Amino acid sequence: MTAAARGTELAERARAGDRRSLARLLTEIEDRTPAAEAALRLLYPVAGRAHIVGVTGAPGAGKSTLVAALVRAVRASGRAAAVLAIDPSSPITGGAILGDRIRMQEHAGDPDVFIRSMASRGHAGGLAAAAVDAAVALDAAGFPVVFLETVGAGQSEVEVASVADTTVVVEAPEMGDEVQAIKAGLLEVADIVVVTKGDRPGAQRTAAQLRAMLTVGAADGTAAARRAETRGRRRPKRPQVMLVTAPSDEGIAELLAALDRRATERTTDIFEPARLARATAQLDAILAERLRARLHAPAHVAEIEALVHAIAGHQLDPYAAADRVMQQLDSDSGDARRAGGPVQYASRP
Amino acid sequence: MTAAARGTELAERARAGDRRSLARLLTEIEDRTPAAEAALRLLYPVAGRAHIVGVTGAPGAGKSTLVAALVRAVRASGRAAAVLAIDPSSPITGGAILGDRIRMQEHAGDPDVFIRSMASRGHAGGLAAAAVDAAVALDAAGFPVVFLETVGAGQSEVEVASVADTTVVVEAPEMGDEVQAIKAGLLEVADIVVVTKGDRPGAQRTAAQLRAMLTVGAADGTAAARRAETRGRRRPKRPQVMLVTAPSDEGIAELLAALDRRATERTTDIFEPARLARATAQLDAILAERLRARLHAPAHVAEIEALVHAIAGHQLDPYAAADRVMQQLDSDSGDARRAGGPVQYASRP
Repeated sequence: MTAAARGTELAERARAGDRRSLARLLTEIEDRTPAAEAALRLLYPVAGRAHIVGVTGAPGAGKSTLVAALVRAVRASGRAAAVLAIDPSSPITGGAILGDRIRMQEHAGDPDVFIRSMASRGHAGGLAAAAVDAAVALDAAGFPVVFLETVGAGQSEVEVASVADTTVVVEAPEMGDEVQAIKAGLLEVADIVVVTKGDRPGAQRTAAQLRAMLTVGAADGTAAARRAETRGRRRPKRPQVMLVTAPSDEGIAELLAALDRRATERTTDIFEPARLARATAQLDAILAERLRARLHAPAHVAEIEALVHAIAGHQLDPYAAADRVMQQLDSDSGDARRAGGPVQYASRP
Repeated sequence: MTAAARGTELAERARAGDRRSLARLLTEIEDRTPAAEAALRLLYPVAGRAHIVGVTGAPGAGKSTLVAALVRAVRASGRAAAVLAIDPSSPITGGAILGDRIRMQEHAGDPDVFIRSMASRGHAGGLAAAAVDAAVALDAAGFPVVFLETVGAGQSEVEVASVADTTVVVEAPEMGDEVQAIKAGLLEVADIVVVTKGDRPGAQRTAAQLRAMLTVGAADGTAAARRAETRGRRRPKRPQVMLVTAPSDEGIAELLAALDRRATERTTDIFEPARLARATAQLDAILAERLRARLHAPAHVAEIEALVHAIAGHQLDPYAAADRVMQQLDSDSGDARRAGGPVQYASRP
């Protein structure tokens, strides 16, 4: 079977509710194979209905516990739920560290709960693009709610959080002298800020602190707001601050109601910035991949390796090296054009 | 004055020891302006002598305190030291949150200590490439030791840490039930693991735990080691584990001695993988930027915007959109070739 035929088959089966095919498709998507491309070309037009909810926060904030509680609540309302957990991954094995196996064992055997880990490392086209593609598949497979949970609080994790329709930033009370979400630059991508461990003494104070900060920081018409618009970034929001105690499910129903309210508001344009950010991330990733495939075509491997060694040895500056590569690339493009048609999508080795 | 002339002037002054010009040059580098390109073309051939030391770890591990202590020790040995601190930055203002101003006030007024923050967000060519370019400038300006400190523990921070000649991973004792550096996937990029707060009761136990783990995980000839080599990643190392108590400077002299030992070993090839990683990051970033400049040439803006909207509305899949852009790009390349010579490096708006 060709890669395209395999992708088509996986896409059709995943659409029809076959979870094993969905799982295999997600592996192809994570590896960005030609089969994944074929599948996504088919699935993309039928996706766009799920509510994609990003959940992020500093390590230890209680994200996984919160997502597990939200999944319970979504199931209790009779709907299916998918979780895509972005885990920090080992640079050696390339695998995710936390893994699916320790996540939410309570939902094992429930076909309407789909949980998947994705390694945060090694996505040539960008982590955000890989997460968006996986979300498209889960969306097309019929999950009305897709949680994108990111573990860790670095730059790429913030990017993932900000391509969700709704971004929930999680903060535990008293994690230090300062609010961790601020330290990680997370607060400004939040639509909803959730203070977990609401039964702890500091929880109310943390929530009050956050509310005070957010009122000052995210006011419309401020200099920051104007700068954000000038730079084409998402407009600062005035996020809601909510308190939950996840193990006892306190506040979870209210949080789900707030999420559902946003989802029903989607006839308005509140999701437009996130949708455009997702489209941009996807298009950029595919273009970067195609250009990279040209660069790494067999004809260039030796030349690029020689250039990289010359740069590493400080015999050549990287700009001069780039000049040479661009000249080579232009000459290839001319050849491709003469041969008629775009260069093919290449599978990764 | 043209951008190139300004870049040349800044480069020459920075080389001659003018710290204000160095600071201005770093701003140009962070913004990836044409002046920065002109400066880096000049500075690159004279750089390559500094020891670039990455310092990373989970938030709260004590990185800044450790770097401050190391800077004191480097100064005590009569050498100059530069610190480039990668801070999580506000998506609204684009600025770094922690800022230079609160960093190491003790060194204010010492021209042989240069401290600079760089925002982790918004580097089109990648954070690692931006950090490497800044390190090249500091190197060329004569700093024999450049500390690259990353705050946060996400994917891009790990990438920055792994382009340093030597990567120090910082872990505080008893930060939770598990070693935070493992959770963040940091341990496998470490050359030296430093347990801070050595006077705390759990410090010895944390160090012992780390030593045990590292002996198991990083042995040569293991399956993980072979996989890493197959994938072209850095060979797993057997990092040293050291204990320090930064405020009282206990263990700091030993740590600096270990760092200096590595630097004198550079006649061997231990720094080669990091140098190649840096060269690759730089070349990739410049190429990505040039291709992006073509994509965002005025002639394409309207077309790309229309494609992004069509993707966002699920009327067009991103692969079909990429096909169209590639065809357009190929036709441009042909034009560029006919016009003679590579497309110019474009400044960002």
